[in-house]
Amino acid sequence: MDTYEKIIGLAKRRGFLWNSFELYGGTAGFYDYAPLGAMLKRRIENIWREMYVIEEGFYEIETPTIGIEPIFVASGHTRGFSDPMVVCSGCDSAFRADHLISGIVETPDALPASEIKRLIDEHGIKCPQCGKIGTFGEVSSFNLMFRTAIGPGTERAGYLRPETAQGMFINFEHLFRFYREKLPFGVTQIGKSYRNEISPRQGVIRLREFTQAEAEIFINPRDKTHPKFSAVGDTILRLYPASRQQGGSGTGVAGDTGGAGGADSGITEIAVRDAVDQGIIAHEFIAYHIVLTNLFLARVGIDPARLRFRQHQPDEMAHYAIDCWDAEVLTDRFGWVELVGIADRTDYDLVSHATHSGHDLSVVLEYDTPEQVERIVVTPDMGVIGPRYKEKAGKVLAALKNLTEADLSGDEIKVEVDCETIIIPRDLVEYKTITEEVRGEKIVPHVIEPSFGIDRVIYAVLEHSFAEEIVDCETRTVLRLPAEVAPVQVAVLPLLTRDELIEPARKIVQMCRRSGIFVSYDDGGTIGRRYRRNDEIGTPFSVTIDYDTLDDDTVTVRNRDSMVQIRVPIAKLVETIREMLRDPTKFIIQSAQ
Amino acid sequence: MDTYEKIIGLAKRRGFLWNSFELYGGTAGFYDYAPLGAMLKRRIENIWREMYVIEEGFYEIETPTIGIEPIFVASGHTRGFSDPMVVCSGCDSAFRADHLISGIVETPDALPASEIKRLIDEHGIKCPQCGKIGTFGEVSSFNLMFRTAIGPGTERAGYLRPETAQGMFINFEHLFRFYREKLPFGVTQIGKSYRNEISPRQGVIRLREFTQAEAEIFINPRDKTHPKFSAVGDTILRLYPASRQQGGSGTGVAGDTGGAGGADSGITEIAVRDAVDQGIIAHEFIAYHIVLTNLFLARVGIDPARLRFRQHQPDEMAHYAIDCWDAEVLTDRFGWVELVGIADRTDYDLVSHATHSGHDLSVVLEYDTPEQVERIVVTPDMGVIGPRYKEKAGKVLAALKNLTEADLSGDEIKVEVDCETIIIPRDLVEYKTITEEVRGEKIVPHVIEPSFGIDRVIYAVLEHSFAEEIVDCETRTVLRLPAEVAPVQVAVLPLLTRDELIEPARKIVQMCRRSGIFVSYDDGGTIGRRYRRNDEIGTPFSVTIDYDTLDDDTVTVRNRDSMVQIRVPIAKLVETIREMLRDPTKFIIQSAQ
Repeated sequence: MDTYEKIIGLAKRRGFLWNSFELYGGTAGFYDYAPLGAMLKRRIENIWREMYVIEEGFYEIETPTIGIEPIFVASGHTRGFSDPMVVCSGCDSAFRADHLISGIVETPDALPASEIKRLIDEHGIKCPQCGKIGTFGEVSSFNLMFRTAIGPGTERAGYLRPETAQGMFINFEHLFRFYREKLPFGVTQIGKSYRNEISPRQGVIRLREFTQAEAEIFINPRDKTHPKFSAVGDTILRLYPASRQQGGSGTGVAGDTGGAGGADSGITEIAVRDAVDQGIIAHEFIAYHIVLTNLFLARVGIDPARLRFRQHQPDEMAHYAIDCWDAEVLTDRFGWVELVGIADRTDYDLVSHATHSGHDLSVVLEYDTPEQVERIVVTPDMGVIGPRYKEKAGKVLAALKNLTEADLSGDEIKVEVDCETIIIPRDLVEYKTITEEVRGEKIVPHVIEPSFGIDRVIYAVLEHSFAEEIVDCETRTVLRLPAEVAPVQVAVLPLLTRDELIEPARKIVQMCRRSGIFVSYDDGGTIGRRYRRNDEIGTPFSVTIDYDTLDDDTVTVRNRDSMVQIRVPIAKLVETIREMLRDPTKFIIQSAQ
Repeated sequence: MDTYEKIIGLAKRRGFLWNSFELYGGTAGFYDYAPLGAMLKRRIENIWREMYVIEEGFYEIETPTIGIEPIFVASGHTRGFSDPMVVCSGCDSAFRADHLISGIVETPDALPASEIKRLIDEHGIKCPQCGKIGTFGEVSSFNLMFRTAIGPGTERAGYLRPETAQGMFINFEHLFRFYREKLPFGVTQIGKSYRNEISPRQGVIRLREFTQAEAEIFINPRDKTHPKFSAVGDTILRLYPASRQQGGSGTGVAGDTGGAGGADSGITEIAVRDAVDQGIIAHEFIAYHIVLTNLFLARVGIDPARLRFRQHQPDEMAHYAIDCWDAEVLTDRFGWVELVGIADRTDYDLVSHATHSGHDLSVVLEYDTPEQVERIVVTPDMGVIGPRYKEKAGKVLAALKNLTEADLSGDEIKVEVDCETIIIPRDLVEYKTITEEVRGEKIVPHVIEPSFGIDRVIYAVLEHSFAEEIVDCETRTVLRLPAEVAPVQVAVLPLLTRDELIEPARKIVQMCRRSGIFVSYDDGGTIGRRYRRNDEIGTPFSVTIDYDTLDDDTVTVRNRDSMVQIRVPIAKLVETIREMLRDPTKFIIQSAQ
C-alpha cells in the first residue's frame, strides 16, 4: 500500500473525502468533501483570505460559474482548451491520445494529432479497456469545457468556467473605478472551476470539478517593483530555475522535470533578493508573490523540504507571459505536483477582451502633477487645398497635421502622399504652437496572477502531515496538521461513560461552541482508543474530564504531537485553547511550568 | 424611483452587485458579487456557519455542483422540475406561460397546459417582446435543470444541481456511520445551485445561479421533540398560519398570500411553545428551527417588523411533507418574498433514493438496553404437508408462520389460504416460544430541512438596512448594517491629504489588517464627503487621524449610526474596535464616559 492509498483510505474511513455519487456507482473525476475534509478546506481557504484579501487588501468578488460564449472566445478557451482524444471502436471508450504513448516518447503532449496516431498504430498500442489492438480511430481534439444552454428557445451557449480568472478580467472597468482609478490593485476569487477531462485516472489530483483561489493583480507595466519587497528580501526560497532543468518532461502530473531531489537536483536555495538581482526571477512583483505563496503553503502544513518553485521553460510558457513559476510539492505516488502557478500575464487578457468586446480597456495613469506639453496645431487653407488636390486633398491634410515645426517653418512645405512628394505653398498653411496640460499616460495594465488549486493543496497537506509512529508498541497514525487548519480543534472526552462525567463534559462542549471553537464529543471506547482516533484526524487538543474534575474544576488537556498532558482550570479553558490554537508552542511552555 | 431601484443603483455604484458579463452585453438571471457584496455575503455565510455548523454541530460537507442523472431521476427533478412555456412564432422569444395570464386568473401556476393555452388565446394575450397577437404555440413543459455531458464518447448526462440537498441525501449511509449510527444528526451545505429560468425578470430575486445554505437533519420519526426546545419556548414569533390565510396567491414572488400588514393581516405574534401546544406548528423540531431562523435573520440585519413565518397551505405543500413554513420578508417592489423554507420532509427522500439505488437506507435504532422479546417459532411437518396440499403447500406454510400462540394451541389449526379455510391436523405442526434479544428497531429517518436562499437574504438585508435621512440640510444615505456583517469594518481617514497625516494613517491600516480587521483607507475629498461615502456602504466605524494624533497618539472613532465621535489611544484601537464590532452598544457607553 503506497502513501496515496493510505491517505485516501484514512480520508474515506474518517470522513475527509468520499467518492461522489457512490450510491449510484460514482463517476471518475468527482470527490465529495466529507465533514472533516470540508472543515479542513474551509480553514485553508480562510487562511488564504486572511493573507490575500485582508492583509494584501485584494477584495474578493464572486462571479458566476456559468459563462456566456463570447468570454471564452476572447480568452481562447473555445479553441485552445482541448486535449487529443482517441475512441476505441471495440468498446467505445475514449482516452487521452497522448497518454497512450507516454511510455514511447518523452513529450507526447507536444506532438500533432497525426503523429500521435502514427505512433499508436506503429507500436500496436492496445485499448486499456478492452485490450484490443488496432481499434483506435483518428485522434481528435476534445474541448475540455462543460457545455450547457442558457434559457430555452433560441438557446444561448453557456460553459462552466475553466478558471475563475475570466470573471475578474471582464470586470476590469468596474474594478478600476472601484479602486478609484489607481494602479496597482488586486482582486481575488475563490470558487469552483471545471474541466471535462476525457478519462481522469489520478483521483483527487485530477478532478473535473475543483476549487481555485486566484488573485489578479493589475499593475503599471512601467513599474514592476513591489513596495513590500524590501521587507521580504531575505526570505530563502527553494528555486528550480529553467536554466537548471534538464529539459523534457517526466512522468509527474505537473510536467515533472528533474528528479525528486538528490545531490544535483537542480534546486537552489537562494535569498529572493539575490534571485531578482541575478535575473533568475524576472522582477520584484513576481518575486514578492512567490514569497507569499511560500508563506501560505508552509502555514497550512506543506513540508518546506518537499516544496520547490519551478520556473517554466521558455517553450512551456504561454507566448504572452514574461515569467511563470509553479509551486510544486513532492508526493509519494505522483512525484512533483503543481499546486500553484504564479505568472506575469502581461496585457494579454485585457487586450484580448478589449478586441473582442470592442471596449477600450486602456487606462490613463495620472501623473502626480499634470505635465505641460507643447504641441503644434496646423490650420491649412482648405478652400484652396481642396479644389487643387482633389481626391488627394484628404491625404494631404492628414500629412500636414503630422509635420514638425521644422517641416513647417521653411519657405515651402513638402508632404509625401502615395510615394509622391507634393510641395505646398507656404501661404496655404498656418500653424501655431500651443501648450497643453497632459494629465497622464494611456496604458493597458499588466496582470500578475497567483493561481492556487485548492484541492491539490488539501491532498498535499494530508500527505505531508501524515505520520505513522510506534507508541507503546503500537502503530500510532497521526495527522500533524497545523492547529489552525485541523478540522476538529478540540475533542472533549469524559474519562468513563458515566453520567457524573458525561454531564460536565457536555457543558464544556457547549461552552466551547458558544465561544466559536469547533469541538467534538466522544464517549465511545477506552480513553486510549479515543486519543488515537483523534490523532488520526489531526485534532490538536483533547480535553479529558475525570474524577478530579468533579473535585477541583480542572481538566486534562493533551497535545496531539507531544502527547504531553497539562491540567487547566475549566474557567480558563476557552482562553487557554484559543491561545494554543494561535500558537501551539505555548503548550510546551505551559506544560513545563 | 422605488426602493428596489435605489438599492440596485447604490449596489452597482458602490460595488455590491454588478450585472454579470456586462462587457459582452450581459444575460438575465446572473449577478456578480462585487467587492463589497462578496464581503457582505461571506460574513452572512459565516454567521450561518457559526450558528448551524459550530453551535448546532451540523458538520458541513461539499459535494459537486454537477450531478449524474440517476440522482435527479430519484429526486423527481427530471420529471417534475419544470415550468410551462410558450414560444412566440413572431420573434422566437420564450415566456413562462402561466405568467402571461397572471392578471386573468388567481393561481395560473395550478392550471394544466391546455387550460393556460386556452386562456392565452381567449384573452388575446400579446407577445411582451414583439407585441403580436396569436403567435403563441402550444404550452410545453420546460425542465429547469441546466444539462451538460460528462466526459466524451458515450456521453453521460449530467445536470447542474437544482438544490444542494440531494448531495446530502445520497451520502446518508456515509453520514450515519460518521455520526456513529445515532440519531438525530444534522449535515449542512453552502453552495451554488442552478435553475435555468425560462425568462427571469426579477433581478436579484430570481437568479439562474444562486447560493443556498441548507441543513438536513435526520431524526427518529417516533420522536420529534427537541432537546433544546425548552430553552427557546418563550420566543415570540410572527406567524402566519395556514388557517389564517385567505386562500389564493397574490402577486408576490413567493406565492404571496395575504396583505402587507394592516389590522387583520393574519399574522399572529405568539410564543413558540404556545404555537406547538395549540397545534399551529406540527412539532417541537420544526418549531426549534423556526426560532433558529428567526435569530439568524434578525442577527444579519432583517427588520423583525417586516418578517413573518408563513405556513404552507395543505394543497401548496409537497404531498409527502408534514408541515412547512417559509420565512418571508416584506419588500417594497416584490411584496412578501420567501427567504427560507423549513419543512418536515418525512422519509420521502431516503425512501426514494433507496428505491432507485437498490440500497436499503433504513437504520437500526439501537435501544439503550436490548429488549427481551418472546417469539413463536413454528415447525410444520413439511414431509406430510408438502404432498398433501401440493401447490398450496407454500401458502399454507406462510400462513402457519403468522399464527399466534392462541391459534396454535387448540386441537385443530385453521389457516386461510386463497379465501378458503383449511384445517391442519394438530400433529403436523410443532411450535415453541423462544426469547430473543432485540437490539433496536428498523426505521427510515425523517428529515427536517431548513433551506436558505442566501442571495435573497442579502438583497433583503440591503433593503431593510437602507435609510435616507436629513442631516445638516442634506440627505444622508446610510446602510444600517449590523457591525458584524458590514463589508468594511473600519475606514481609516487622514483628516487632510498631507504626508504627516497619511503616514500614521497607513500605519494604522497595517496594524488593523494584521489583526484581521478589514479596513479601507480613503484620503480623497473632504472628511464630510468621506464619512458620507462610508455611511452609504454601511461602514460601522471611521477612524480619523488629525493633528492631535501627532501630539497625543489618539484618533477619533466615529459611529455610523449615531455619528457620535470618541477619542481613542492608538495603542487601544484594535482592542476597542474588536469590542465594538462584537457589541456596538459599547460605543454609546464609551462615548458617555
